[in-house]
Amino acid sequence: MFECALIQGELFRKLIASVQDLVQDGNFMCDANGISLQGMDSSHVALVALALKKEGFVEYRCDRDVTLGINFANLAKMLKCMGAKDRLSIRAQDEGDSASFVFESEDSSRVSNFELKLMQIDQEQLGVPETQYKAVIRMPSSEFQRICKDLSAIGDTVSISVTKEAVKFSVGGDIGSGDMSLRQSESGDVDGDDSEKVMIELEEPVQQNFALRYLNNFTKATALSKTVTLSLGTDMPLVTEYKMDNLGSIRYYLAPKIDEE
Amino acid sequence: MFECALIQGELFRKLIASVQDLVQDGNFMCDANGISLQGMDSSHVALVALALKKEGFVEYRCDRDVTLGINFANLAKMLKCMGAKDRLSIRAQDEGDSASFVFESEDSSRVSNFELKLMQIDQEQLGVPETQYKAVIRMPSSEFQRICKDLSAIGDTVSISVTKEAVKFSVGGDIGSGDMSLRQSESGDVDGDDSEKVMIELEEPVQQNFALRYLNNFTKATALSKTVTLSLGTDMPLVTEYKMDNLGSIRYYLAPKIDEE
Amino acid sequence: MFECALIQGELFRKLIASVQDLVQDGNFMCDANGISLQGMDSSHVALVALALKKEGFVEYRCDRDVTLGINFANLAKMLKCMGAKDRLSIRAQDEGDSASFVFESEDSSRVSNFELKLMQIDQEQLGVPETQYKAVIRMPSSEFQRICKDLSAIGDTVSISVTKEAVKFSVGGDIGSGDMSLRQSESGDVDGDDSEKVMIELEEPVQQNFALRYLNNFTKATALSKTVTLSLGTDMPLVTEYKMDNLGSIRYYLAPKIDEE
Repeated sequence: MFECALIQGELFRKLIASVQDLVQDGNFMCDANGISLQGMDSSHVALVALALKKEGFVEYRCDRDVTLGINFANLAKMLKCMGAKDRLSIRAQDEGDSASFVFESEDSSRVSNFELKLMQIDQEQLGVPETQYKAVIRMPSSEFQRICKDLSAIGDTVSISVTKEAVKFSVGGDIGSGDMSLRQSESGDVDGDDSEKVMIELEEPVQQNFALRYLNNFTKATALSKTVTLSLGTDMPLVTEYKMDNLGSIRYYLAPKIDEE
Repeated sequence: MFECALIQGELFRKLIASVQDLVQDGNFMCDANGISLQGMDSSHVALVALALKKEGFVEYRCDRDVTLGINFANLAKMLKCMGAKDRLSIRAQDEGDSASFVFESEDSSRVSNFELKLMQIDQEQLGVPETQYKAVIRMPSSEFQRICKDLSAIGDTVSISVTKEAVKFSVGGDIGSGDMSLRQSESGDVDGDDSEKVMIELEEPVQQNFALRYLNNFTKATALSKTVTLSLGTDMPLVTEYKMDNLGSIRYYLAPKIDEE
Repeated sequence: MFECALIQGELFRKLIASVQDLVQDGNFMCDANGISLQGMDSSHVALVALALKKEGFVEYRCDRDVTLGINFANLAKMLKCMGAKDRLSIRAQDEGDSASFVFESEDSSRVSNFELKLMQIDQEQLGVPETQYKAVIRMPSSEFQRICKDLSAIGDTVSISVTKEAVKFSVGGDIGSGDMSLRQSESGDVDGDDSEKVMIELEEPVQQNFALRYLNNFTKATALSKTVTLSLGTDMPLVTEYKMDNLGSIRYYLAPKIDEE
């Protein structure tokens, strides 16, 4: 028997929305410590990895490891039926062929119960090695989203270059070229809200090219976190990470476009 | 000569919007007591009946019975030209081939006058018998709208089942199944606003299946009233009624899907 | 070297948006006094003329006359990357084949630099004679926008007729006919905000017909000014002018539909 509950079911809906454009289906791996999910996009250029810790759930019980094979579009249809402030419970029998998703309004006057058919998905779990990155940028997630969306109007590929002072996003295309630079915030720059700051940790300057199409996909996760962290190295995948307080994180890995440099 | 006026012309626009997706055209029957309209959808599964009482109008004069044959899409185009706070007057000569719709802004600085060509529509007026229903549910109209819309993502047919304690909307489809239950409100449940409550009057438990497509059509009337009343019997049409304070009501009748039970 | 800067870059974006649906590309003529632009729509029925005075810019330097041939759709793509409160600088070398557009956030933490390729555009500058119009109407630009949009649902051609008391917009079509009249405001009519008033200056009554399609195009400029001025004569183009405080104005000229009168 696997069972877990979130006070803010909405968060889970946003998580699925952050995954479903990149991968169609995948295995939720549930064990005593939490839930994880990995998936590659169909062209094998991008990888999404979700890690939810049991501490983030208001209830969590996993008698033995369970794998739930889920079609995300179908799950999203069911999660659409959840009210904005509903509590969400997920339950699955050890050998069952469906999982149940229960939405409950705050005052329990409305209870919804959905049974989603599960799938058998053959999927290898990839080990993603912990690496030392040359540059790590933390910035407001909405700013990153806007930059990726805006630059897409000019070209397909963005060049991200990082120095101690600033991170620069450049693009070129038929109509011309452009770049947007964000300066590292100084201590006194932003009052109060730390999430508005741009923070750069640099070992050495880096420049890499990436397909904007994927980055735009990743920014679906903007709703999950006020900040995003970009980790870059040379000829290494970019890691785009959104952290959700004590619930865990969602990470996207994207291979650089080597040929275009 | 027929003439009537509404302080809130907007209300009339919403009424037409609530009818026009279901029926293309119809006869406004105007007599000394008010205005009524009936129409069946093209597949003869659903019926809409509008009844406006003269008491709801700020001016009402009907020298003798008048039938105005109206194409709703065309009327809607004209009503789009009405300001949100305009007063609406409708006028028609006894044997005229057009009706005039006059919109006047609050301070009379803007006056619009539209002449809509009338149609000859052969249409029998159906007598809808007053029946005793087994179950009558009053609930927030926005809640009903949301349930119908959400469940449509899972399947085509909703099963509505009513007990003394709750009303349950169930749906099944290829991807799984789901149900949403609304508990009868207790006296202390909702403070102040009675329209937020779910009230169930039950003679005996009922369960019937209906096509969600039509229910979604009916919920266009959500803008007209904070609450909706659903009346159910066995093998009888569902009545979905939206009441507009002292102006009257709009009712939708929908035959159950017998074969699928 | 040509260089200019606007505190509110947003205004320039709205200007380009007000032009680009009517004309695809055009020459920005920059001289010591300011920037001007003229363009005809592809059917040669409408003309747009933009005139920006150097006094409206926070910086303005034009060593010698420069012509910048611009594709508006491409420029609009770049201006989309400008933040809502960014400062805009435009720079061009005397003989360059590109112009640079720089967007800077208020606190200078974000700086974007875009290079737009310029075009060679053969275009005659038309002299538009200053004329005495029979009727000049000043009205809220949003009201004019709404009228043009709403009447388009009924027919293609609007007849504008002006008397001392009121301006009337009439339309006819298959489904019927309609007109909207705006009464000249009296001194005490609108408290405080003068831009809400309808002001009519009349030499003699006028009535002319115009294609709504173009008027709807012109109303893209509604975002630039709270009021619009319509100037009419007999068998003369209508002038639709939007003034931007001290920056200048955008004018649209539209030939009347003579045949339909």
